[in-house]
Amino acid sequence: MELFDKTLGEISEANKEIMNVTRERWDGLFKTIGGLGTLEELSIKISGMTGKVSNKIDKKAVVVMCADNGIVEEGVSSCPQDFTVKLTKTTLQGNTAISVLSKFNGADVFVVDMGLLEDIDDERVINKKVSYGTKNFLKEAAMTKDELIKAIEAGIEVADKFYAQGYDILGTGELGIGNTSTSAAIFSIISDLPVEKTCGKGAGLTEEQFEKKKKIVEAAIKLHNPDRDNILEVMATVGGYDIAGMCGMYLSAAKNRKPIVVDGFISSVAALCAIKLNENTRDFMIASHLSKEPGASALMEELGLEPMLDMKMRLGEGTGCPMTFRIIETSLYTLENMGTFADWDLKSSVLVDIR
Amino acid sequence: MELFDKTLGEISEANKEIMNVTRERWDGLFKTIGGLGTLEELSIKISGMTGKVSNKIDKKAVVVMCADNGIVEEGVSSCPQDFTVKLTKTTLQGNTAISVLSKFNGADVFVVDMGLLEDIDDERVINKKVSYGTKNFLKEAAMTKDELIKAIEAGIEVADKFYAQGYDILGTGELGIGNTSTSAAIFSIISDLPVEKTCGKGAGLTEEQFEKKKKIVEAAIKLHNPDRDNILEVMATVGGYDIAGMCGMYLSAAKNRKPIVVDGFISSVAALCAIKLNENTRDFMIASHLSKEPGASALMEELGLEPMLDMKMRLGEGTGCPMTFRIIETSLYTLENMGTFADWDLKSSVLVDIR
Repeated sequence: MELFDKTLGEISEANKEIMNVTRERWDGLFKTIGGLGTLEELSIKISGMTGKVSNKIDKKAVVVMCADNGIVEEGVSSCPQDFTVKLTKTTLQGNTAISVLSKFNGADVFVVDMGLLEDIDDERVINKKVSYGTKNFLKEAAMTKDELIKAIEAGIEVADKFYAQGYDILGTGELGIGNTSTSAAIFSIISDLPVEKTCGKGAGLTEEQFEKKKKIVEAAIKLHNPDRDNILEVMATVGGYDIAGMCGMYLSAAKNRKPIVVDGFISSVAALCAIKLNENTRDFMIASHLSKEPGASALMEELGLEPMLDMKMRLGEGTGCPMTFRIIETSLYTLENMGTFADWDLKSSVLVDIR
Repeated sequence: MELFDKTLGEISEANKEIMNVTRERWDGLFKTIGGLGTLEELSIKISGMTGKVSNKIDKKAVVVMCADNGIVEEGVSSCPQDFTVKLTKTTLQGNTAISVLSKFNGADVFVVDMGLLEDIDDERVINKKVSYGTKNFLKEAAMTKDELIKAIEAGIEVADKFYAQGYDILGTGELGIGNTSTSAAIFSIISDLPVEKTCGKGAGLTEEQFEKKKKIVEAAIKLHNPDRDNILEVMATVGGYDIAGMCGMYLSAAKNRKPIVVDGFISSVAALCAIKLNENTRDFMIASHLSKEPGASALMEELGLEPMLDMKMRLGEGTGCPMTFRIIETSLYTLENMGTFADWDLKSSVLVDIR
């Protein structure tokens, strides 16, 4: 509990003054004021994190939190449960989507065992296993409070280590069959939205399986009826170790005042948990894409973040992060390298600000 | 007229059979069927253009069509007219947004003089000047039919040359003070939408200037009242040389069966003109971003294209293209490099298709 409490205590909001300085710098460049939209806002947001106008990304990584979910025994997923371990191994081999997307875009991929049903004998796996999968939340709480804190702290430790090693930005990813159910349950509780609005077909449920999934999530919420304002209670009863680990990563990013990229639905639910723990963590998050999961838009609204990619992706793993890294790098590079109106002996004020 | 007619005659639709083969290949990869959304669709679309499942982008360029617009004398822009020439020169120096964005993302930038008010003494400028700016369309047609065809053919020639030189993909860009007015006028006529829905504040008009701009565009439409089904008449009366040049580039892309990226509002209006000339050109266009210009959503709907970036950009120049190139390259690379379910001795059909 010590690392958890300490981390929460060390988080403060973005530096608004530096953000204004960065915005003024954009306003002096050869372009309509605000004309590059989000491309400008990205570097402005990052300057608020680091406290510096100029920032650069040399090292970047997607961290994939891998864990099994007890609820899978109820048949909420179209995938066999052993796909979590199989996909984790395949990621290590460099053959999953996140491996390939990251490689092309110059990002490293790290795999964390947060709670896989099997142990993977590979030294590249970062072992933070809390236990061999969560419990079936239709019968009991997915995890104890202690297990939850252990999982969140594991996420903090992992991200702390990478930021200390010189990674300038991290992205959150996950592998965990059943984790659209755990995240939909959390989101429904926090937002008070019915499961109709938060559940999707995940990897590929039939209509019949989909109806069953919604009933199961609804029943679990009714069974535990956690206090929606007690986010730790919500996470422990219906969450997963992957979500808890990603939540820890967001807390670490905010503490270290470094950017962290949010992927799709599950990663976004973890982000929402982090914001509920400390509102200031939002200042350190960058949304990547609008997932095709049905609840994605409502989730982004609840998060208060605006994704820049709209690509109908619904794969998870962190697949929104590598392309987003490139866009962020483009933002930082553009700020440093564009010409200024001063070179023309002109004030940028010839262009009215319609931002 | 010969090149124009010949080009139109040589355009045919995408190869749907190869597209299906490419889709099947995606379906065999380690992922939910359709789970990578647009990232899958991009390579599928390109395979339909080239007729090959596997495609690669080695050389890429943004072509910036530069031209002045006679309508500027009515005060439709917040920028002085000489900004067109100044920004063209600054692009050659590598200091505008399109220069910097392209450099970071590994794309070349080429500048075409389609009708600048001044001659730029720089051998890097591709000289296709039709005349020294268009006429003021509030008084007379912006250009003659001959000038229009000359401008479209210039665009065809430029793109033909680059594709022949081994460029695998091109992006369209423009520089031309006043070109949100010309493009709004074209779009209003084609779509029958009122100027309220197609005009924006461009580079930064005040409310008063904005009202004036809309009145001018509306008056010009009333004055000429061109036949909306005669796209050449529409383009000649209220268009610009930049729009005509980009329109020619789209025709060339379709003829050469190569991809071409559409940028923002003006570039999209040029794309709409190309589609009106030959419906099949759509199969060779890839939309990049949803511009912040008010008419952008309606325009994308009319185009039948879905942009993948939502970044509130409204700068033009082709600035949506370089980041989009990277995403397209990520798509092509991912298709080639992901593992397949066959490696697991599994059929992908364990995952139900909910595409």
